Amino acid sequence: MKRIGKQTLQFETAPTILGRGAVGGRKEAAGPLGGDLHQTFDDTTLNTQSWEKAEAQLQKEAVSIALANAGRKPEDIHMIFAGDLLNQCISSTFGLIDYHIPLLGQYGACSTMAQTLLMASIMVDCGAADLAAAVTSSHFCSAERQFRTPLEYGAQRTPTAQWTATASGCVILGRGGKVRVLHGLAGKALDLGVKDPANMGAAMAPAAADSIYQYLTDTHTSPNDYDGIFTGDLGAVGSQLMLDTLKDNGVDLKAVHQDCGLLLYDRQAQDVHAGGSGCGCSASVLCGHLLGRMERGELKNILFCATGALMSTTSQQQGEGIPGVCHVVHLAV
Amino acid sequence: MKRIGKQTLQFETAPTILGRGAVGGRKEAAGPLGGDLHQTFDDTTLNTQSWEKAEAQLQKEAVSIALANAGRKPEDIHMIFAGDLLNQCISSTFGLIDYHIPLLGQYGACSTMAQTLLMASIMVDCGAADLAAAVTSSHFCSAERQFRTPLEYGAQRTPTAQWTATASGCVILGRGGKVRVLHGLAGKALDLGVKDPANMGAAMAPAAADSIYQYLTDTHTSPNDYDGIFTGDLGAVGSQLMLDTLKDNGVDLKAVHQDCGLLLYDRQAQDVHAGGSGCGCSASVLCGHLLGRMERGELKNILFCATGALMSTTSQQQGEGIPGVCHVVHLAV
Repeated sequence: MKRIGKQTLQFETAPTILGRGAVGGRKEAAGPLGGDLHQTFDDTTLNTQSWEKAEAQLQKEAVSIALANAGRKPEDIHMIFAGDLLNQCISSTFGLIDYHIPLLGQYGACSTMAQTLLMASIMVDCGAADLAAAVTSSHFCSAERQFRTPLEYGAQRTPTAQWTATASGCVILGRGGKVRVLHGLAGKALDLGVKDPANMGAAMAPAAADSIYQYLTDTHTSPNDYDGIFTGDLGAVGSQLMLDTLKDNGVDLKAVHQDCGLLLYDRQAQDVHAGGSGCGCSASVLCGHLLGRMERGELKNILFCATGALMSTTSQQQGEGIPGVCHVVHLAV
Repeated sequence: MKRIGKQTLQFETAPTILGRGAVGGRKEAAGPLGGDLHQTFDDTTLNTQSWEKAEAQLQKEAVSIALANAGRKPEDIHMIFAGDLLNQCISSTFGLIDYHIPLLGQYGACSTMAQTLLMASIMVDCGAADLAAAVTSSHFCSAERQFRTPLEYGAQRTPTAQWTATASGCVILGRGGKVRVLHGLAGKALDLGVKDPANMGAAMAPAAADSIYQYLTDTHTSPNDYDGIFTGDLGAVGSQLMLDTLKDNGVDLKAVHQDCGLLLYDRQAQDVHAGGSGCGCSASVLCGHLLGRMERGELKNILFCATGALMSTTSQQQGEGIPGVCHVVHLAV
């Protein structure tokens, strides 16, 4: 492991992706990436008694698929890094408990897939784990119930609102795979005063701009050195704000930028307003779509920059802002 | 970094504690360890408008003291590992945001101090960070409001209930300090079916027994090789269960075991029933009391085994059990 520049880590042994699993619900199955998900569930309760139990089941399924894809068993995995949006990360705890893998809960809101991937990569690189897993999930119904209003209210959504994905993604990290993790950057939490919980994209855009700018500076690279720079999930509003902020600082990301929240759904046809969100959104786009494209050689060199909004209903009610955070992982074939 | 046995990590460069900070509220100041805390607050609102903001302030203060103790500035710290009990870990986010340190949120319930310490130690050992910080907090009033009943109800507490500490602890990890981190173990979540949220000690005892047993097996050591094995926070009920479980498996911990939840308060005089709990309990006992004793040479070789109960009010209401987890860190002078 080598630190380069101010915040970036360079992996010397290049941990690799050995297996991946992406699952989703009915809406995700119907979206443009539906075919890239390994498993989708028409009944979004997944045959459980609650949305929270369904979300836990999503994680369990994603891990199971990733393990099978890597040809490994749970007991082969030395550590699992997992997190989600639910209070006290219960979908991770209850989704993973039967695997009996040492569990290190992570909280980075919707940035959690990049955070868990970064942590698992560090562990493999430094030998703390031969094999490590990274997983996260979200569920539209459990998130609406917890953060917004009960579904039964039929509350009107604002145009800047994003749609929490019912999805989960898991990767197994180890040596000898095709897709390599070359660099990573842990982001700073930034609060620029956005207080509208129906506009998370705007709240997270400054953190995305900050982390990507710092990463490019640290590595002396420019946007065109990458086949794609994927944020997740800024949506339409946040993506534009991030592009504008970076342009003001002399970095033009437009030609290579895409946002996981804009990839998972057809915004117009699926009525998701500003785009998708939730830990499971960037997780399923990474584990289902992006890593698939890398394995097939369609993408060779990408930045995965998941973003999170670090708030709770309590912090909102007490008048706090919505700090954003963005962690960056550099993947290459 | 070397893996030994099934779950244990051995640190080859032995990251060390360069600074520490422990803060508490009025009740903690009045307890047996009051004199070991660097700062206590008679007004447990810490002059803020809410209990949640007060808890965030506790973290801010603990980090500030630890930084001063290490003779470092926030910009010297490459990563901070932080977590707490509040929904979406808001005391960590809002307590730390002004420091602008790359933030990696951790969730391990009351085991979070051991988890953050383990993560920060790994980062320093492998060179991902020259300096890393670990911090966690809890606040009696924010925890009661979130997990139990509003304080104004004056609800009766059961004899097995524990008292959430109003406290925070922070350590700065780097090279060249006196107290060294020699080994660490990330624990598995274990659910043996305890469902009583007023008896967290019983819920966490199996995980503590499992992690300690595994650690001793992996390192080929016995309890008497240590000056002390400190769990946190099993309280009176959980401690006895853990001792009994280990004894049934041929390990007698009694002579060297103490529990942070039983050290922080005078159980009888301070009416804390089964003992203290909350992320801030083991954090303040470690950062205020135990590390102080190590610096003075009174303790030379200890295991710090913080335990957490991975549940939420939602998982409780949906009939789930209370999985426990325990992470182990071996500290020596």
